[in-house]
Amino acid sequence: MKKKAVFYHAGCPVCVSAEQSVLGALDTNRFEVEVVHLGTAKGRLPEAEKLGIKSVPALALDGQVFHINFGASLSDLK
Amino acid sequence: MKKKAVFYHAGCPVCVSAEQSVLGALDTNRFEVEVVHLGTAKGRLPEAEKLGIKSVPALALDGQVFHINFGASLSDLK
Repeated sequence: MKKKAVFYHAGCPVCVSAEQSVLGALDTNRFEVEVVHLGTAKGRLPEAEKLGIKSVPALALDGQVFHINFGASLSDLK
Repeated sequence: MKKKAVFYHAGCPVCVSAEQSVLGALDTNRFEVEVVHLGTAKGRLPEAEKLGIKSVPALALDGQVFHINFGASLSDLK
């Protein structure tokens, strides 16, 4: 079964750059990739916070959070 | 030809966690992966600085730098 990779972003330039490069480099044979725009999908904010996400862009690999560079604080998206 | 993915770290716990997860998720059919320990390979520090790396762990995908979480400042490794 594939592991889950969820990329949380907010449409910022830093986010788009990370999405294209980091997400594009993942092995999609092993990971099921989902992209969540927290600026528009505000209903996913509690889930992101629960995972421990503080800023976007962030990548959750099988539930483990990695903040990639810095685009925007999660609190700025509320 | 494969693109190059270089993972710069300093052996810190944050680095090891990112190495195992993020690096392990990359598609090695498309990326040639190299791991550089800047704590021991200090000769690679100028190269890392030139790429724009400010802290480790950091991942350079085809020359584009992504800082992943925060382990240590590059200046602390000199």
